[in-house]
Amino acid sequence: MTIKAVVFDAYGTLFDIQSVAAVTEEAFPGYGDIITQVWRIKQLEYTWLRSLMQRYQDFSVVTRDSLAYTLRVLGLEHDRDVFERIMDKYLHLDLYPDAAPALTAMRNRKLAILSNGSTGMLDALVANSGLDRVLDATISIDAKQIFKPAPDAYALIEERLGVSPEDVLFVSSNPWDVCGAKAFGLNVAWIERVTPEAMALACVKSDFVTPLTMFKAIRTQMDELGLEPDYRIHTLTELPGLVAAHES
Amino acid sequence: MTIKAVVFDAYGTLFDIQSVAAVTEEAFPGYGDIITQVWRIKQLEYTWLRSLMQRYQDFSVVTRDSLAYTLRVLGLEHDRDVFERIMDKYLHLDLYPDAAPALTAMRNRKLAILSNGSTGMLDALVANSGLDRVLDATISIDAKQIFKPAPDAYALIEERLGVSPEDVLFVSSNPWDVCGAKAFGLNVAWIERVTPEAMALACVKSDFVTPLTMFKAIRTQMDELGLEPDYRIHTLTELPGLVAAHES
Repeated sequence: MTIKAVVFDAYGTLFDIQSVAAVTEEAFPGYGDIITQVWRIKQLEYTWLRSLMQRYQDFSVVTRDSLAYTLRVLGLEHDRDVFERIMDKYLHLDLYPDAAPALTAMRNRKLAILSNGSTGMLDALVANSGLDRVLDATISIDAKQIFKPAPDAYALIEERLGVSPEDVLFVSSNPWDVCGAKAFGLNVAWIERVTPEAMALACVKSDFVTPLTMFKAIRTQMDELGLEPDYRIHTLTELPGLVAAHES
Repeated sequence: MTIKAVVFDAYGTLFDIQSVAAVTEEAFPGYGDIITQVWRIKQLEYTWLRSLMQRYQDFSVVTRDSLAYTLRVLGLEHDRDVFERIMDKYLHLDLYPDAAPALTAMRNRKLAILSNGSTGMLDALVANSGLDRVLDATISIDAKQIFKPAPDAYALIEERLGVSPEDVLFVSSNPWDVCGAKAFGLNVAWIERVTPEAMALACVKSDFVTPLTMFKAIRTQMDELGLEPDYRIHTLTELPGLVAAHES
């Protein structure tokens, strides 16, 4: 097997969505983390629910709606400026420090993003972070009007890059995305950003009763969907070596 | 408009899924609530993810898998007996106290359940609770191999009861289910079991940092999916009057 293309999920994989907390904490002191966590959970739910209901709206709408839900439920009053300032951070998310070096080291392959993000959001994000200089393509599921993990979303990789699934390595930190990509037939590397050991440590009972731990318990561990990643890595730094090892 | 059939969601609407906590707390002292909350969130996620991935497995499988995820992530070791004892409680959930009287008061209409539950799980639940004596039908989405809120799931009401959507009142406490039913074209009553006022009270900051509050913040408030219920009620007791008022 030769890996001809390495395709990345964006949010939580290359870009640190938790970096929004700096802005939410400034806007609502003491609520920074809880906002980002409830917001992320509802954002994902809305992508899945809208897909199933056949009521697609693009990720910018879903992201706004889930933020509106979060602030309403937490009882946080706000004006339009605050809301827009938080939304704007989503176009300027921090890159994980291991992202740019790993991508640069694999420039001899086709490199792309496949994301639930709308074309507008992704183009802004990629330009603002400088990743446009190393990526061959930024693919939004927008074209299919259905979100990951629907097979139609992953089919965009072959349609846009001309590389068949067995020659693609798909990389994601999101367990549900890993399972969706496997179900579709891609080779998949899971970035395990929170190890079971770290999770177990966080779950020591006295510490468990925090929203952050509950969020981690819901979001970070491999799901029970009858599918497993081909590779488990802990940082993107491991990727170039993993890809090179498959050259032979 | 005449309401010819009143159709209920099962889990969280007629049956109190939180009643599992008695068994989980006995098995894992101090973890009873957190288990039921993470379990429920993952159970729902798996129904949506499997539907989108086109990897349907029935609700008994999804319920087992999500419980396995929960116990693994919380680091709770257990033997097979404990696992089966918790699972068994899902076939003996407590009815909400307002459920049986409300159903009995509306026996002049067609009464049914439409649930994500598997046929086996629902038949056991309905028999164990005695609801089989008042229900005309217990409909599992099993026949369609796709979970709510997919339109195909709600289409089963007309197929099984012979009542068209505009003559049906669908009742659910689950916001996503309310939105799915509205998107399909049913009349929908939402049982708002946690009011915004109660939610706001729970979110007073010092109190917010509990998993139960976070669960409520994720699960109980009306979603931002561009759809609204036709009716908001706080107990099932209000239903017979609401239905009768539409007779004219």
